[in-house]
Amino acid sequence: MQVGKPILYSYFRSSCSWRVRIALALKNIDYETVAINLTKDGGQQFSEEFQALNPMKQVPALKIDGITIGQSLAIIEYLEETRPTPRLLPRDPKKRAQVRMVSDLIASGIQPLQNLSVLKQVGQENQLTWAQQAITSGFNALEQILQSTAGRYCVGDEVSMADLCLAPQVANADRFKVDLTPYPTISHINKSLLALEAFHVSHPCRQPDTPPELRA
Amino acid sequence: MQVGKPILYSYFRSSCSWRVRIALALKNIDYETVAINLTKDGGQQFSEEFQALNPMKQVPALKIDGITIGQSLAIIEYLEETRPTPRLLPRDPKKRAQVRMVSDLIASGIQPLQNLSVLKQVGQENQLTWAQQAITSGFNALEQILQSTAGRYCVGDEVSMADLCLAPQVANADRFKVDLTPYPTISHINKSLLALEAFHVSHPCRQPDTPPELRA
Repeated sequence: MQVGKPILYSYFRSSCSWRVRIALALKNIDYETVAINLTKDGGQQFSEEFQALNPMKQVPALKIDGITIGQSLAIIEYLEETRPTPRLLPRDPKKRAQVRMVSDLIASGIQPLQNLSVLKQVGQENQLTWAQQAITSGFNALEQILQSTAGRYCVGDEVSMADLCLAPQVANADRFKVDLTPYPTISHINKSLLALEAFHVSHPCRQPDTPPELRA
Repeated sequence: MQVGKPILYSYFRSSCSWRVRIALALKNIDYETVAINLTKDGGQQFSEEFQALNPMKQVPALKIDGITIGQSLAIIEYLEETRPTPRLLPRDPKKRAQVRMVSDLIASGIQPLQNLSVLKQVGQENQLTWAQQAITSGFNALEQILQSTAGRYCVGDEVSMADLCLAPQVANADRFKVDLTPYPTISHINKSLLALEAFHVSHPCRQPDTPPELRA
């Protein structure tokens, strides 16, 4: 049984790592970061040591309570079940379904199509178009869904797991120069989220492994 | 408030639809199927009527209890919370985390990369190689994880949400001619699953919209 602080294997720029960093910040869970640089040394996620920890060779992975969990949403659901305050899933099962639908839309429907390993396969010259297409196609759907679920945040007026997926995905959209004008609801929620302390401290530009030139 | 039977918008061959069909069968939930043919008429998921229902233009979607839920895992989690018997998530939070990790590995890490819309983008001549690469890369990780989590099924000896993802993904692997020899744990679990009634009745070759030549 592991004792001591949870360890988050994270990369500052990984949007999936950011989701988990927000959850840890919101729930006020003290943790250590082990930086896994996805581009240095041909990708530190491919090291034997890291593969033994997460065979998917992806970040994030969280060592906590004697186990190691991969997959950001599985990690967040575990944190929610074992450290329920503040809650990241509403009480009402129908609202919970909306939160999970929005989360999965981003985590299965958008992010995997524009992550580093896929873009490598697509080839340098097609990367930007490919990523933009994945994001706009997902955001077209997301904007429509949020128009009926959102209050101040993605589902109603409380921050939920869906918001932990939204802000990092909007950051990816920015990175790939996606025009956000057609997405007023997404943009508005994102702005509200970025004003929150937990989103601020967990931001890619403020991590232990953020290179000096990208710090803010 | 909707009354009457739940309606599942499904396509016989969609692996994500199959996940939900298994859940409905295991939980003995009576439902109606509305077939959405993903290839006919340029794709019935693109109709205005269906887009209003699920802006992601994907199956499955489930109309139930007065709401419509998209995203297969969000649907399954909702069914689990509102119709908890038999359970598809273990009681122990650590085991639940393992179930969700395996489910997300497939639902975010494999399936989205080999689904119909991505393969269209990749182009006819590259489709098979692309799909095989996505599946073998995911299965390499999955095999390693299952070696430490599996009993008779993906996590221990009870069927869980992870198994609802596994069998449909193995069917996709078959379809894309992936050699399963390197994956004895995956293959063994899949065989046990296919022997279960709920996996049998929900199988792509036994759906209302299965074409006669693919029926078994």
